[in-house]
Amino acid sequence: MKMSQLFTKTKKSAPADAETANAKFLQQAGFVYQEMAGVYSWLPLGLRVLRKVETIIRQEMNAIGGQELFLTALQSKENWLTTQRWDDVDVLFKLQSQTGKEYALGPTAEEVITPLVQSFTHSYKDLPLAVYQIQTKFRDELRAKSGVLRGREFLMKDMYSFHTDRQNFLEFYEKAKEAYLRIYERCGVSAKVTESSGGSFSKNPSHEFQIETAAGEDDLILCRNCTFAQNTEIATKQSGEPCPDCGKELAASKGIEVGNIFDLSSRFTDAFGFTVTGEEGEKKTIYMGCYGIGVSRLVGSIVEASHDERGMIWPKSIAPAHVHITTLNAKDKESQDRIMQASEEVQEKLISNGIEVLWDERSNSIGEKLADADLIGIPLRIIVSEKTLKEGSVEWKARTETESHLVKFEDVLEQVQSFVAE
Amino acid sequence: MKMSQLFTKTKKSAPADAETANAKFLQQAGFVYQEMAGVYSWLPLGLRVLRKVETIIRQEMNAIGGQELFLTALQSKENWLTTQRWDDVDVLFKLQSQTGKEYALGPTAEEVITPLVQSFTHSYKDLPLAVYQIQTKFRDELRAKSGVLRGREFLMKDMYSFHTDRQNFLEFYEKAKEAYLRIYERCGVSAKVTESSGGSFSKNPSHEFQIETAAGEDDLILCRNCTFAQNTEIATKQSGEPCPDCGKELAASKGIEVGNIFDLSSRFTDAFGFTVTGEEGEKKTIYMGCYGIGVSRLVGSIVEASHDERGMIWPKSIAPAHVHITTLNAKDKESQDRIMQASEEVQEKLISNGIEVLWDERSNSIGEKLADADLIGIPLRIIVSEKTLKEGSVEWKARTETESHLVKFEDVLEQVQSFVAE
Repeated sequence: MKMSQLFTKTKKSAPADAETANAKFLQQAGFVYQEMAGVYSWLPLGLRVLRKVETIIRQEMNAIGGQELFLTALQSKENWLTTQRWDDVDVLFKLQSQTGKEYALGPTAEEVITPLVQSFTHSYKDLPLAVYQIQTKFRDELRAKSGVLRGREFLMKDMYSFHTDRQNFLEFYEKAKEAYLRIYERCGVSAKVTESSGGSFSKNPSHEFQIETAAGEDDLILCRNCTFAQNTEIATKQSGEPCPDCGKELAASKGIEVGNIFDLSSRFTDAFGFTVTGEEGEKKTIYMGCYGIGVSRLVGSIVEASHDERGMIWPKSIAPAHVHITTLNAKDKESQDRIMQASEEVQEKLISNGIEVLWDERSNSIGEKLADADLIGIPLRIIVSEKTLKEGSVEWKARTETESHLVKFEDVLEQVQSFVAE
Repeated sequence: MKMSQLFTKTKKSAPADAETANAKFLQQAGFVYQEMAGVYSWLPLGLRVLRKVETIIRQEMNAIGGQELFLTALQSKENWLTTQRWDDVDVLFKLQSQTGKEYALGPTAEEVITPLVQSFTHSYKDLPLAVYQIQTKFRDELRAKSGVLRGREFLMKDMYSFHTDRQNFLEFYEKAKEAYLRIYERCGVSAKVTESSGGSFSKNPSHEFQIETAAGEDDLILCRNCTFAQNTEIATKQSGEPCPDCGKELAASKGIEVGNIFDLSSRFTDAFGFTVTGEEGEKKTIYMGCYGIGVSRLVGSIVEASHDERGMIWPKSIAPAHVHITTLNAKDKESQDRIMQASEEVQEKLISNGIEVLWDERSNSIGEKLADADLIGIPLRIIVSEKTLKEGSVEWKARTETESHLVKFEDVLEQVQSFVAE
């Protein structure tokens, strides 16, 4: 990918109203474009990150037996009346067709998935099952804020599981919890399982996955020595008290919620009269779980957790590219041709070996190019310049490091491969 | 993929209101689920087809230089007022936030993409450029009908190109036309480029891509000997007249529109005051093209073009799987174990060689299993039964053929590979 061919450009400064790191850097680097408050389009570099996160989520959902589908965003008012949520969910966008029919614009999908699964499921033998989708969701937030963290339109992975057996549900719930932790780890961030309230979705307790960061909206009580964490909304412990699990001192912190899993019990299946026939012909209650990850929100959270004053620092697994090649300007045309050719050779060698490259071959100043590379935050920067080319080398710097060093031209591929695989 | 593990099931009959082949078979086979009139969820088998079509489209859009992005579905009322379409587009869904802000729910994206591209584009050197997305669109159709062909919510690929030079636009328009024809060909259907009116999008003529089928909504005048085709809306010729291109007799026919490309000229760029600076500092007008393919509609159209009375007949490139293995029931447990094991061996050998398999290992009757295989329409069916296993063979039948033949166990992989590659 050549930078001169990308239609997006970095901006000199972030929009004045961008208060959080993700709002600031994602816009300044041209990863997203704010259409309106809380409503963002994803541009080529941002979309690459989003798709990589999606792929990781999809793999982990498939691994625990999730079947992917794609539900409708327009949802039936009748179904929302059936679950008694039409008037109760304050973030529900409603709209009306020209024939007067009313729809909900999906903020979540219990009202769609429950009758859908019901139509295919009649016997206890058909359960358990889990289905999921990655789909745009809509919430009429009173205050959209914090960039892509709390928007009116966002990308979400939502999974729903159905069980005739409470124990079986609990086992799946644990499997989902582990899958979530794997997802965050593969995305290069660390999330803590946090006990929280079920909110409007469930009366039962639920679990949130929280990334510790100063920009977090949620107040947490947590143990830095073990996995104990509670949202202060429901916390039974206070900062300074001993951890109930390991005895070390508990701390107060802030977190961004990047996922949540809910025990819905039979709240929705009962509402739709969804039961199955048991082994002896009896009607069996169906227990349901709901498992959400805000995909676009996760991308924003990763920026909050991984940036410095100059820009974003992408984990290798989800970066828009592995390597940012920056070609500096030479003094004369002949030298320029030589370093452009050398850069192209490096690029082609890397690409043909499956390495993703963003190549800055623009004629901009060295200062602009280096600032752009830091802002965009690709994990590895390779500078090709007249000076080092004479020594048969390129200048190598990981985004997380402050010092660069020289790498011989012929060693670049091998070293990049180890860097990416690390 | 084991059929017993798929949560969807085929139904004995199609819903009573399903009038077209796609509405009937896609629902009966569990590929889609009708949430409401004109609003369908995509279930695992259907989603596999949809994703394969998406991948083909994405490859061809990338090949002509399209940069993928993902725009918002919530669109600014102000932008629709700017283009004077807020009150003019009758299929526009409108909604209001709890704070009283009004939004359009995107039926197309000129109002989003034009100011977005404007914000990054200042010089003639930044053009031409083309961007595209694959995104759910919403249209408040008065009468949603024909299954997934004309829905209120549907998946669409929309591309937009921007040019300072009319000639350059026309060249790109031709490139897009060729890319579209490649897409349909790769999806296993033949589409005809048809002159048509620009509709509400453009005063200039435009081109539709039509698949000839009796279920088509559009009346066409076309030549079966060459590429000439006109929508009767703007036709200058009549059935029976000689073709202006080749002289053969023109015929009347019906088609489903599966794509359209529009010359938008400066209709939208003018409305947003989007110009760029030219070589001599002058303001340059920007010409714009719009290129759409209804992705979900294309899947439905392929069913219309490729089915028989028993079910769907998927082209290999977009089928939910390459091979449908049907294991018949044996008389006794020992034989049953043997044919299950043989089936599993075939499945594993195929899967480990990149072949996608749907394995019907259910205990249903032979009649049900064969009917399901025909309904689902995977290109190749392999039957493993006690009878042929004794002869070291499986029964092989392509979905397009009426007769089956035996293939030796050890030749299955090689023959499947040639079948898929054909």
